[in-house]
Amino acid sequence: MEWTREKRYLPYNQWDAETLLQLQAQANNSKYQVKYHIRPTSGLINDPNGFSYYNGKWHVFYQSYPFGATHGLKSWVHMQSSDLVHWENLGLALGADTKYDSHGAYSGSALVIDEKLFLMYTGNVRDKNWARFSYQNGAILDKDGQVTKLPEPLLTAPNHVTEHFRDPQLIKHRDQYYVFLGAQDKTTLSGQVALFRSSDLHNWDDLGYLDFSDEVMGYMIECPNLVFVDNKPVLIFCPQGLDHEVSAYENIYPNMYIVGEQLKFDAAKMETNQKSPLNLDAGFDVYATQAFNAPDGKTYAISWVGLPDIAYPTDTENWANCFSQVKQLSLAEDGTLIQRPVPEMANLRHNGVNIRTSSAINNVQVVQDTAGQQFELKVTIAANQVGTLHLAANSNLSESLKLVFSTDCDARLTVDRTTAGIQYATEYGTTRAVDLVANESLDLDIFIDGSLFEIFINGGRQVVTGRFFAPTSNTKVAFTSTKALGYSGTYWQIEHI
Amino acid sequence: MEWTREKRYLPYNQWDAETLLQLQAQANNSKYQVKYHIRPTSGLINDPNGFSYYNGKWHVFYQSYPFGATHGLKSWVHMQSSDLVHWENLGLALGADTKYDSHGAYSGSALVIDEKLFLMYTGNVRDKNWARFSYQNGAILDKDGQVTKLPEPLLTAPNHVTEHFRDPQLIKHRDQYYVFLGAQDKTTLSGQVALFRSSDLHNWDDLGYLDFSDEVMGYMIECPNLVFVDNKPVLIFCPQGLDHEVSAYENIYPNMYIVGEQLKFDAAKMETNQKSPLNLDAGFDVYATQAFNAPDGKTYAISWVGLPDIAYPTDTENWANCFSQVKQLSLAEDGTLIQRPVPEMANLRHNGVNIRTSSAINNVQVVQDTAGQQFELKVTIAANQVGTLHLAANSNLSESLKLVFSTDCDARLTVDRTTAGIQYATEYGTTRAVDLVANESLDLDIFIDGSLFEIFINGGRQVVTGRFFAPTSNTKVAFTSTKALGYSGTYWQIEHI
Repeated sequence: MEWTREKRYLPYNQWDAETLLQLQAQANNSKYQVKYHIRPTSGLINDPNGFSYYNGKWHVFYQSYPFGATHGLKSWVHMQSSDLVHWENLGLALGADTKYDSHGAYSGSALVIDEKLFLMYTGNVRDKNWARFSYQNGAILDKDGQVTKLPEPLLTAPNHVTEHFRDPQLIKHRDQYYVFLGAQDKTTLSGQVALFRSSDLHNWDDLGYLDFSDEVMGYMIECPNLVFVDNKPVLIFCPQGLDHEVSAYENIYPNMYIVGEQLKFDAAKMETNQKSPLNLDAGFDVYATQAFNAPDGKTYAISWVGLPDIAYPTDTENWANCFSQVKQLSLAEDGTLIQRPVPEMANLRHNGVNIRTSSAINNVQVVQDTAGQQFELKVTIAANQVGTLHLAANSNLSESLKLVFSTDCDARLTVDRTTAGIQYATEYGTTRAVDLVANESLDLDIFIDGSLFEIFINGGRQVVTGRFFAPTSNTKVAFTSTKALGYSGTYWQIEHI
Repeated sequence: MEWTREKRYLPYNQWDAETLLQLQAQANNSKYQVKYHIRPTSGLINDPNGFSYYNGKWHVFYQSYPFGATHGLKSWVHMQSSDLVHWENLGLALGADTKYDSHGAYSGSALVIDEKLFLMYTGNVRDKNWARFSYQNGAILDKDGQVTKLPEPLLTAPNHVTEHFRDPQLIKHRDQYYVFLGAQDKTTLSGQVALFRSSDLHNWDDLGYLDFSDEVMGYMIECPNLVFVDNKPVLIFCPQGLDHEVSAYENIYPNMYIVGEQLKFDAAKMETNQKSPLNLDAGFDVYATQAFNAPDGKTYAISWVGLPDIAYPTDTENWANCFSQVKQLSLAEDGTLIQRPVPEMANLRHNGVNIRTSSAINNVQVVQDTAGQQFELKVTIAANQVGTLHLAANSNLSESLKLVFSTDCDARLTVDRTTAGIQYATEYGTTRAVDLVANESLDLDIFIDGSLFEIFINGGRQVVTGRFFAPTSNTKVAFTSTKALGYSGTYWQIEHI
């Protein structure tokens, strides 16, 4: 099928229901489908939106194009949870059905206001000449799950931005509402975070661009999030076209963060000691992470596992992408972000098996012969070791997702998906490496869910997330090393949600 | 919306996808929705089909009309499980899209043949004059979840049946295939179970009607199932229009069973000592139960919780009905059926709280003030007690689902939904009663899931299943009794699946 523009923007009511049912069945039956992460009912999923806590439940929405693996007419689909781990799909919440969102209900955020969940989102509109207009709209979700769109946009784009002005994050600070927006400056065509203030959600003061770096942040910033982590402001954002000299990254577009010392809201100034942004995830496929400060005092984040402008192997199955698990944020002593699984993730574990150093046969130590498609492996590798942990491997280990580690003086973990199955996006490299502290043991908490891997390193000091598309018959987990190897840990099967 | 015949039989590809997405959201957001039982993604669910074990998983399909709470153009939707408790919806499996099922892929069964899952189902076809034709069709589900329909019907209706000839149950016995079909005899217009034999699934011997009773089984039998329970043949079936003198029942149509001593397949004869069929469920809403002999040696059953020709309160929300939990079948000493929860149901339990006799205040003993919408209550009531257990009650107990019990010389349990919320089908009574053994204690295992209750009495010797539509704010569980009351048990929250 050729995804013409006309086809991608066809209103949902011009698609037929049988096609949708068949697309849903196709996605649900895919052998690559993830089973304990948020994933599309059909078609393509992208940014997390409206991550929040309301009416005794956790909420997150996903950007949805339900008719195929392409970025077509977007809507919001509502997911709800009691524990940040088990999610229920409540279905379509915001469609593209008004003159202020006719070409997509694009990304946004949620804030509890007056016992309702206030949604602020970007309405994407194209005119006859396909010129883009971005409206910042409001909608209200009530306790019965009903969504009512506000009749008029909340906020008009200022003159100093181009039509690339989207992804509002609405927060409340000292009785004022603030909204952070991804923007492109009209004069310099640089990426910016625009900041606005209001007391009533309708009349907004333009506070200008958030001053958080001396560097140019590429040509566009998407999905800015300002959250407080251990009382420090942290800006999470996606700079597109960022110069690799400013910060090193390997993905087509990075998802980055800067930790500040203080945020002066009204001056639109984040004071920071951090010279340049850091990669939020050291892996292959994380983008558009959304974070929020929850009423339990914790800061949670969830990521799109998928990148713009990258073709994925499941595109031929007419569906694409998933979300990461929810990650709890904190700060390390060195001021960098720590991202950990939420404690409730442990409730998915079943049939835990202790693993430890065994006698190697031909330098191979088998951890599991048939690990299945959904598992967690938590393992500590002793200091001064060199070897490879093979995940989703075939019997002779010629195919696997490889974790090549050294915990000696040249300490490093390299995740290599070169032999992990169907290859894609190889122009951005097939390995990702994380430097480790020399001569120290290495803690890995590895989650495998079908075609998704998430590797939490040393208690979440680094996270390496990615997709891989191996034959489902590749179920072996094994260590290889030419020297004696010291490790111990636990392997669990993980239940579907 | 008026459900004209034309609208009900509109092909799925003439409905629009936006309508379907909105119907899915409406069903998912209903406050009456069940959360740990199989239920429709949208629209109406009826008979369980193809309950089976294949490729390391349990499978069941549901009869689906996805566009509203009406019996329109039916299809099969595929559910899969690893434990008979957690079910994944794999989507549309059999649509109404050939000339042999143009007006509905109606009910049927599944049997593993040659490492594939063979589906046998009734194709419903109407001609221009709306005359009905019933074809018995085949389809093959492979390990990748792909379904291929066979090009021609498997079995032609014999001359001695009317067009009411459906619901094939295919089983294998001593190297021969047998199929049991619900039928109406053309001469007597009586309900029958037609039996056929084949060695190749294509050439069938008509063995005539199964001889299992001297009584007339109404004007039609639907959903016959022949299973072996503790080595005895048991026929589970739905006789429509059964004379109340033959067997007492209160629902519009009953779901009944007869336990046989021996089944002579080739003679189409089930020898039985049971004079008349018994109700499978003593409640309000069970129909179309499908059972099968599993490779683990056990016999499992699952029921439609819903009745033909009854309007349900959620019809106004455009969805209706659900399935029961899976029930494991065995025989009691007196030869009647025992139906128990499968052991894995206990894995859904959380936060167990022991409950026991406490001091009554104004004759009320509160078990839980806020029991929520999903819970299990397992309780033993001592012998020689009289009282009422109120479920889903408001604060002063004027509204509740009432279990009125006496365990004295006149021992009986009455389930009364008169004050349990929105009333429906009241012409068939608002109470159901089960006689108990005098002067013995009473074990109840009660499952509440939103608008569904399942009450297993004395280890499954009786089951009372029904729907009720109470305000979600009615969350109290309490005993009332004018005398001292002895009971003990456990209350658990039950997780969503």
